[in-house]
Amino acid sequence: MHGGNDACGARAVARCTELGRAPYSQMEGGLFRPYLGPSYRATCERLAQWMQDAGMATRMDAAGNLIGRYGGQSPDAPVVLIGSHIDSVRDGGFFDGMLGVVLGIEAVAHFARQGKRFPFALEVIGFGDEEGSRFPRGMLTSHAVAGVLESPDPDMTDCMGTATLATALREYGLDAKRMHMASRRDDPVVAYVEAHIEQGPVLEAEGHALGVVSAIAAQHRYRVTLCGMAGHAGTVAMKLRRDALAGAAEIILAVERVGRAGGDGLVATVGSLEVAPGAANVVPGHVAFTIDVRAGTNATRDDAAREILHIAHQVAKRRGLGMDVVLQQDLDATPCGPRLTDLMKHAVRAVTHTPARLLVSGAGHDAMVMAHLAPVSMLFIRCAGGISHNPAESVTDADAGLALRAMTTFIGLFERRFG
Amino acid sequence: MHGGNDACGARAVARCTELGRAPYSQMEGGLFRPYLGPSYRATCERLAQWMQDAGMATRMDAAGNLIGRYGGQSPDAPVVLIGSHIDSVRDGGFFDGMLGVVLGIEAVAHFARQGKRFPFALEVIGFGDEEGSRFPRGMLTSHAVAGVLESPDPDMTDCMGTATLATALREYGLDAKRMHMASRRDDPVVAYVEAHIEQGPVLEAEGHALGVVSAIAAQHRYRVTLCGMAGHAGTVAMKLRRDALAGAAEIILAVERVGRAGGDGLVATVGSLEVAPGAANVVPGHVAFTIDVRAGTNATRDDAAREILHIAHQVAKRRGLGMDVVLQQDLDATPCGPRLTDLMKHAVRAVTHTPARLLVSGAGHDAMVMAHLAPVSMLFIRCAGGISHNPAESVTDADAGLALRAMTTFIGLFERRFG
Repeated sequence: MHGGNDACGARAVARCTELGRAPYSQMEGGLFRPYLGPSYRATCERLAQWMQDAGMATRMDAAGNLIGRYGGQSPDAPVVLIGSHIDSVRDGGFFDGMLGVVLGIEAVAHFARQGKRFPFALEVIGFGDEEGSRFPRGMLTSHAVAGVLESPDPDMTDCMGTATLATALREYGLDAKRMHMASRRDDPVVAYVEAHIEQGPVLEAEGHALGVVSAIAAQHRYRVTLCGMAGHAGTVAMKLRRDALAGAAEIILAVERVGRAGGDGLVATVGSLEVAPGAANVVPGHVAFTIDVRAGTNATRDDAAREILHIAHQVAKRRGLGMDVVLQQDLDATPCGPRLTDLMKHAVRAVTHTPARLLVSGAGHDAMVMAHLAPVSMLFIRCAGGISHNPAESVTDADAGLALRAMTTFIGLFERRFG
Repeated sequence: MHGGNDACGARAVARCTELGRAPYSQMEGGLFRPYLGPSYRATCERLAQWMQDAGMATRMDAAGNLIGRYGGQSPDAPVVLIGSHIDSVRDGGFFDGMLGVVLGIEAVAHFARQGKRFPFALEVIGFGDEEGSRFPRGMLTSHAVAGVLESPDPDMTDCMGTATLATALREYGLDAKRMHMASRRDDPVVAYVEAHIEQGPVLEAEGHALGVVSAIAAQHRYRVTLCGMAGHAGTVAMKLRRDALAGAAEIILAVERVGRAGGDGLVATVGSLEVAPGAANVVPGHVAFTIDVRAGTNATRDDAAREILHIAHQVAKRRGLGMDVVLQQDLDATPCGPRLTDLMKHAVRAVTHTPARLLVSGAGHDAMVMAHLAPVSMLFIRCAGGISHNPAESVTDADAGLALRAMTTFIGLFERRFG
């Protein structure tokens, strides 16, 4: 079984790589696979072939997601969904999303080769739009499956300016008014399992091939504006200045300090900043910047955000700067199912012979949405340099093989637990 | 004399205000007076009339500067030049430059009313292009007068795209090849005196109407680039980051700290900063910013710049950031003539009844160039809020009157000294 899975790990990597070029990409010299585009159709056809080869029956749901089904011991058996997303950002990497879909197929193939059936069906699902790669809102398709899709605007236009959501669906034989029919609310879905590249450097830095996600991070994003007094950099004495950028600098360092001091997957970032007037010889009068705070629990995020904003207010007051803070994004943490997480930790320990590294996922995933439907578990796979959304995204055959063994081990443990 | 000078202070302010609109401005609803434009011509005609009314003979020199001469006790007497600039930036204030020219005219008028002649001629000069308000290089005209004009490119085009320097001069009856003929190298010029609004908030903050300039600041301007590692703001753990913006923030605070700690007119500023990629959810990989350091002496500037760059290198090293520093501007300090400065201090003390506040001019002035020709002295006049290059620029009648009395007192003291 080990040798087989290693070969299948290599095949999973090769399949992701094959899908990185035309006709599975619609970008010259790189990968771009927008939801419902021609490259998306070609990819679904290729994946469906691999699903059928692995013993699955395939269909497309009302939201354009591809589903392959490997029936259980009875026709009305509960369902374990295994998946990730099919779409890719422009000039993306080969493994973001696709590796989870392809590993799902390999896992089913593994059991099909043995003629093994479970007291639950295995369904591999490829979601259509996790990235928001085409339309301004992403994850519409997992919202539909989870039964939590609020009517999307059928007239929203895509990033290529070629179609509205309604048109794109219609050209695909689908209907915007019926997207919500993809819901699995009335089906006995008992778990959603997603394997995904880490898209960060932690596993590599600590020498782990795999990691188990404890939660998808809670997030707050703020936009902060500081107003001081612009003035001539040569003529305004230091003690008379109200320099908005110097105030921002203090706050940037506080964001970093608070982020470093926290546990529980806490990260805090000032990623964008603009200075006005922004001339070398003018004291900055106006600075606007973002503060992004994420953590594995709402409480950790909230404590950190409160501390940062408290310091920011003190800095502004002491420096005589006006300050405005707007909360732009507020996402609750999504804890992974605790029992599934325990099983995944056991599976990872069994295949890597080391205790599983628990991680908070700082990035969003379809699992975050699927948690509305069923308990979820996520397996993270080491990627070189933590690089993602970039052609340099890279996963080794060996790590993909270990991930596959962890997935199949997890399914075996789930069966025992389930019985 | 005091009452007369106060009335003449009010007249100087009124004259500057009159010159703030058409035909003396060529911008709707604000002041813009570019070198050699139609508004420049109208302004020179009006100023020449006031000069003649004050008893001066007027002429335009080969660089387009307006000169009014009030002869001395003998035809070949030495010359004291009193001046500032006629041109104005777009949407500028009424007093920047013009107040010094108009106060020069009032000073001569004051002595002419008394029939007073000196052992030196008084010449009031209005320079054409201090601001670089029209062509990309400024202060060509004071360079010409000081005899240090290196051939300007006659084909450089103006900011309005309407003319080259050669064309603009030709339309004015002048010749680019003969600009250097404005040189006063062969004349017995013994002093250049310039009154100018402070363009900063120090005098107002300390309750002084007038200040005496000890030097025009030495300046270094650097462009600093920091390179770290861009990454996902949700997935890159704090301890694995090389955040270029956090590094820049430390340096910005060091610039401020070093600037505050220094004397001798030291100011240090980060006025412009750009972040890349510059997205809220991406750890900054690349930041570029300017550092502007100015002080009354080269030594003070150099010490401060050395300390700032030393700290910056330490920050970059500790954080694992690449750093590149380019010196973009390097201007030596221009000390005002020490004996003239002493006389101006006495004059200011005599009219304000308080010790003169000595200031370093952080902004450049024609005096900086004229120091190549003769000892220079500068008198600063309080302006509201330190605001300049803005329609809100404002000077009180009383302060203008005090400035005029300081100028006439200075000329009287210079005569005693000169004798």
